[in-house]
Amino acid sequence: MKENHFKYIGRPVPRMDAPEKVTGTLKYMTDYHFEQMVWGKVLRSKYPYARIKSINTSKAESLPGVVCVLTHKDIPGFNGFGIVVPDQPVLARDVVRCTGDAVALVAAETKEIAEHAISLIEVDYERLNPVTDAEFAMSSNAPSLHENGNIHSHVIIKNGNMDTAFEEADVILENTFYSPRQMHAFIETEGGWGIQEPDGMLTIRCPGQYAYRDRLQIARALAMNPARIRVISHPIGGAFGGKDEITVQIYLALLALHSGGRPVKIHLSREESVIAGIKRHPFKVEMKTAAKKDGTLLANQVRAVADTGAYASLGGAVIALAIEHCCGPYKIPNVDLEGFCVYTNNGISGAFRGFGVNQVCAAIETHMDMIAEKLGMDPIELRKKNAYEKGERSSIGHELKTSVGTLKTLETAETCELWKNREMYKKNISEPWKKRGIGIATSFHAVGMGIGLPDYGAATIELLPDGTFKVGVGCEDIGGGNSTVYAQVAAELLNCDIEKITVIQGDTAETLDSGTVTASRSTYTGGKAIAAAVPHMIRVLTEAASAQHRVEPENILIGENEYYAMTKNGEQVSTYEKLYAYLHENRLSTKVEGHFMLPKEKEELPQSGGAPHHLYGYLTHLALVEVDTLTGETEVLRVVSIPDAGQVLNPQGLEGQAEGGAVMGIGYTLYEDVLMDGGYHQTANFTNYIIPTIRETPVIETFPVESTEETGPFGAKGIGEVVMIPIIAAIMNAIYDAAGVRIMHLPATPERIYKALKSRDVRQ
Amino acid sequence: MKENHFKYIGRPVPRMDAPEKVTGTLKYMTDYHFEQMVWGKVLRSKYPYARIKSINTSKAESLPGVVCVLTHKDIPGFNGFGIVVPDQPVLARDVVRCTGDAVALVAAETKEIAEHAISLIEVDYERLNPVTDAEFAMSSNAPSLHENGNIHSHVIIKNGNMDTAFEEADVILENTFYSPRQMHAFIETEGGWGIQEPDGMLTIRCPGQYAYRDRLQIARALAMNPARIRVISHPIGGAFGGKDEITVQIYLALLALHSGGRPVKIHLSREESVIAGIKRHPFKVEMKTAAKKDGTLLANQVRAVADTGAYASLGGAVIALAIEHCCGPYKIPNVDLEGFCVYTNNGISGAFRGFGVNQVCAAIETHMDMIAEKLGMDPIELRKKNAYEKGERSSIGHELKTSVGTLKTLETAETCELWKNREMYKKNISEPWKKRGIGIATSFHAVGMGIGLPDYGAATIELLPDGTFKVGVGCEDIGGGNSTVYAQVAAELLNCDIEKITVIQGDTAETLDSGTVTASRSTYTGGKAIAAAVPHMIRVLTEAASAQHRVEPENILIGENEYYAMTKNGEQVSTYEKLYAYLHENRLSTKVEGHFMLPKEKEELPQSGGAPHHLYGYLTHLALVEVDTLTGETEVLRVVSIPDAGQVLNPQGLEGQAEGGAVMGIGYTLYEDVLMDGGYHQTANFTNYIIPTIRETPVIETFPVESTEETGPFGAKGIGEVVMIPIIAAIMNAIYDAAGVRIMHLPATPERIYKALKSRDVRQ
Repeated sequence: MKENHFKYIGRPVPRMDAPEKVTGTLKYMTDYHFEQMVWGKVLRSKYPYARIKSINTSKAESLPGVVCVLTHKDIPGFNGFGIVVPDQPVLARDVVRCTGDAVALVAAETKEIAEHAISLIEVDYERLNPVTDAEFAMSSNAPSLHENGNIHSHVIIKNGNMDTAFEEADVILENTFYSPRQMHAFIETEGGWGIQEPDGMLTIRCPGQYAYRDRLQIARALAMNPARIRVISHPIGGAFGGKDEITVQIYLALLALHSGGRPVKIHLSREESVIAGIKRHPFKVEMKTAAKKDGTLLANQVRAVADTGAYASLGGAVIALAIEHCCGPYKIPNVDLEGFCVYTNNGISGAFRGFGVNQVCAAIETHMDMIAEKLGMDPIELRKKNAYEKGERSSIGHELKTSVGTLKTLETAETCELWKNREMYKKNISEPWKKRGIGIATSFHAVGMGIGLPDYGAATIELLPDGTFKVGVGCEDIGGGNSTVYAQVAAELLNCDIEKITVIQGDTAETLDSGTVTASRSTYTGGKAIAAAVPHMIRVLTEAASAQHRVEPENILIGENEYYAMTKNGEQVSTYEKLYAYLHENRLSTKVEGHFMLPKEKEELPQSGGAPHHLYGYLTHLALVEVDTLTGETEVLRVVSIPDAGQVLNPQGLEGQAEGGAVMGIGYTLYEDVLMDGGYHQTANFTNYIIPTIRETPVIETFPVESTEETGPFGAKGIGEVVMIPIIAAIMNAIYDAAGVRIMHLPATPERIYKALKSRDVRQ
Repeated sequence: MKENHFKYIGRPVPRMDAPEKVTGTLKYMTDYHFEQMVWGKVLRSKYPYARIKSINTSKAESLPGVVCVLTHKDIPGFNGFGIVVPDQPVLARDVVRCTGDAVALVAAETKEIAEHAISLIEVDYERLNPVTDAEFAMSSNAPSLHENGNIHSHVIIKNGNMDTAFEEADVILENTFYSPRQMHAFIETEGGWGIQEPDGMLTIRCPGQYAYRDRLQIARALAMNPARIRVISHPIGGAFGGKDEITVQIYLALLALHSGGRPVKIHLSREESVIAGIKRHPFKVEMKTAAKKDGTLLANQVRAVADTGAYASLGGAVIALAIEHCCGPYKIPNVDLEGFCVYTNNGISGAFRGFGVNQVCAAIETHMDMIAEKLGMDPIELRKKNAYEKGERSSIGHELKTSVGTLKTLETAETCELWKNREMYKKNISEPWKKRGIGIATSFHAVGMGIGLPDYGAATIELLPDGTFKVGVGCEDIGGGNSTVYAQVAAELLNCDIEKITVIQGDTAETLDSGTVTASRSTYTGGKAIAAAVPHMIRVLTEAASAQHRVEPENILIGENEYYAMTKNGEQVSTYEKLYAYLHENRLSTKVEGHFMLPKEKEELPQSGGAPHHLYGYLTHLALVEVDTLTGETEVLRVVSIPDAGQVLNPQGLEGQAEGGAVMGIGYTLYEDVLMDGGYHQTANFTNYIIPTIRETPVIETFPVESTEETGPFGAKGIGEVVMIPIIAAIMNAIYDAAGVRIMHLPATPERIYKALKSRDVRQ
């Protein structure tokens, strides 16, 4: 490791939230219980698509112990929510479009009474024929699920001349890829509690990824002054994008208004979370890629269709990001890329770690593997040949102005032990009928929001009477560990011990609006905002020390945990406690703010939905797998993760992200899929939704490459999403390397691999 | 006048802002000049409808003295604004839809250089055939000006059975009414100034009707944290709805970002204000009304089409309010009401005092007059017969739950001197060829926002060191005089002299979000919020006095301008200064908040766009006119305004509203219309847009009827809009009474009256 002059930056500072999370002493919002509490329950739609003829709540209302029963009639404001387009009703009025649709709410003295009351609500439905296939949904024969038809968004990026490119090509590949409806599978299902204070103020405690935006969505539905609503969204038992959209916040708020000042709690069962919570968009990706004999990529044609289910949520942004990334970190001169985000009656899809890039990376990185094979080239060599560098143009035609790590990550892959000794690793099979293979894939992921979207950070630092600092950032720690990094940045720059830093997050009453925790942006944005706040705090402390000791500010030195005044009588020491006492006595502020805006590209590619981004993280994955040719089962034995995340602020944190991302990628590639049939969820719970456990977790090595992103805090950029992306294709390529079958319909279940093995055997 | 126990409420307290407004010492935002200031100018579209092929700013940029030239490429965030649907581009990118569209911005050292630079910007347009007729715009032959076609909104309210109603009718009237494109004609045209502070914060000083919403619209366009933008929207040189939408705030913000920390000022000339500012929606109203022989109204069929011009702004809400009010304050059992808000290339229409009700009241109240005539009934008798009362159902079918003053206002009209002596007044002509007539009309107007829209008030009261109170309300005083009423409410309830009250308004840094100043709501909402804050201040003061004199709070008495403590040593006095000193010393807060939410109806009429409202103000107007039969000129000689505004908080303020509203109604009925031809404004300035002056202002008498609205502050409700509504039809009916011609195409210009007189003479 390179020399490090810092006390905290670049050091493996243990996660500050680890002890209480690991020991279970931390209380999540859904862990709270109160004497006076009432229980909220949501009545979900019985059908994936139906007209509501009437709703009769009288039986439920007369059940003893029921506090209130609410329907769409009880929504004081706008009956809808949705981050981009508020097309999802809070409570359905005349139509339901998926089985997750909420139709009524109940609050009752006990959970059991609430459940009973829910069962007593009579909804008269007129069933309609559900639309369950995204391609069919786009056809003129499909009924329109929303006012403007079923195509929610359509993005297009074109460059060069496809016809001549395909004519000049020596290799052309054309395949269709299908990807699963992944579940976020966070530890804490959607839930929280709310209360109306005696003064009318609403407090909603509900885990989320952007308390300020949640508050605006609640305020719109309640027609209420947002300043009268406090949203506390932190801590949170995992999110991964699944709590970016409104979950139960508005239900809690509505019930709180009707529960006479008593706290109301909602906590979805896992089964309800499966049905009502958002999922990763299943994609169909048709890709046609052309290359020259020497491996130079010539053209890529892509048509991607994302099934967003009944409501848009962030679907338009997901398909836009997918199209922006679908050519990989390469320079392909001719591209014709098109994406559709389509409404169906299949639940609801939304934000999920990777945000559409996972689905398209699987396609392009399979094609890269196939091209290398066809041309007899080394797969790393092929990728190096086509990778763009800083200053060059990407496939979508924009100039890369910030750091690009692809080449470095590929060079590191080439020299790592697994790759160098790959023949040895492959031979070392555990049973004669098992086969081993090694796959590689590389990818990238934007850091921050697209053009035109707000991308700011804001932080506060407050000196407390005990001489510690309270650092406030709006961004929640949704599991990525940003709280620890925030403390590191603050302690490093304030020149104090990290024990003197408390980080508070995700509370509209205590922290400033710092944007959403998505797009791999919170370390970058929050870190920079803290860095912007520190000079203000140093000025406050310096001036206090200067006044306290009656010397000019120039004669104040910043020491570790204290300030020194060079007075005529020699050096005088001011501790933080003393400085606080002085400030307090003189009614001077002990709190400062720092603000930051993420730099952006200026020129948006027309019809691209926000591309290009200004900054990307890069990563190469290697995977060693063993395929059981008798059963089709695949085991991932070893993973190498080589990220370019700029300067690493916390190596332990980076490893945590790399390992978590890899395991999530393994689940996506091999096991996970929420199955639906006719608009009904066939997957109910973890009984038939398989996620990797420690048993399926391989050895994961992380070798970050060194780069410095000048705009980032201490040279860092984001990493939260790309860590789960190339591993998907790396495993797919490794399965091919092992067993000679290309699985293009994920997950690569034993059944699919077994079937592919059989059909290959027949063909051979 | 009835007995009044109050010191300030119900008293004619002079407007607090009157002296500095009348003497011209008050500085409006657009009056400011600074040494370092740069001037901003907006390049508007050359054509009402065209495609932009290219924009070349290089010549403008190289002009010495130019600070920056900005186009759509320089918008960091979302390139659009609009209160309901942000369909208006901040700076046009590929298409212009009206001559008010902004295409580029310039900041320069002087106004002259800025103007010169604007003229140097080369825009290559491809002209398109403008759509200038709202009925044609709805046809399938019209090009679509926006993605979803030209019908921006369509509202429908139906009740009863129209066919049988028309069969049973003894009188049926069917007419089409046209109303003008009125200009707000505020004293201060759109303008203001902005600056980026050294810490990055933006301060925008621009008169507006809702600083908090303006801030959100600016933040969206700039992709900026709203907390980093301060909007100061008060004082304001008149608004009348015309500054409800964004005017130049976003231009100021964009230019401020590119002017190196120097203040940027924009101030539209009257000519630019005419072209770019919003106007009142011109309506076509087709109305068919049926009554029985005894005068009982049977049915009303209405089809109203509002021309919203190039962008929606509040057009959807305007047509919804028009349809809600188009049957007058009557109970008509059968109605079939339909309204369309339609895009054309005729400038932009938006909010304007009356908000669509003016246009439909003209129609129904003309029909009422015609029915009375046909049946030989007294016009007041006919109205009384059909007027609904509290607890009854309106024509749109909802039950009136709040105070209804129509009958009282009609009874007052019957007994007023002008009506009683109407024959005498009519005979008293000034020349033999002039004819006099008296007309009556009654109407109503919703107070507050429709169902589903936020409708809250928030106020702060702060005790200052000098023992005065700073009362903060977000709502601006757009000319209606709410600041004086706020001071009255605060002084009355705090039991202090009104001189001790300072009211601050419209500043996101100093006042809470209190909603928009529209919908005749600000006295009601702000007044209630102050009333909600006072008890908190009294508690603070009582506790301070109690602690100061070491007695229990029960032993504190609230005196006029001071607090008394009943101690063992007798009565001790605490002045506000002393109480402040105590609070300050003990680090106790000297500031309190008050919040209020306007009560709402629960059940929205489907497809009505937010109807019904919970509360309405009512008003009957009488007008005496004299028509010159040789020239067609009409003079309004006398107006009686009989409002039901609940309890009157300030009789002088109410008279001011009644007089201003009447004069604005006279202008609307007789003179005002912004004429257009092929999408170009034919009206340029007040040279050819005639508004009433003191010469045209008649004697206006105001006789408020007594009612008490339980939910309002001291029993008050709103009055700002209804004061200009029935006068329109009253004048129309008076013209008929005088000269025997019905003018259904407003304004009733001399030309139109003359022509009508001629054609009547021919027919006779």
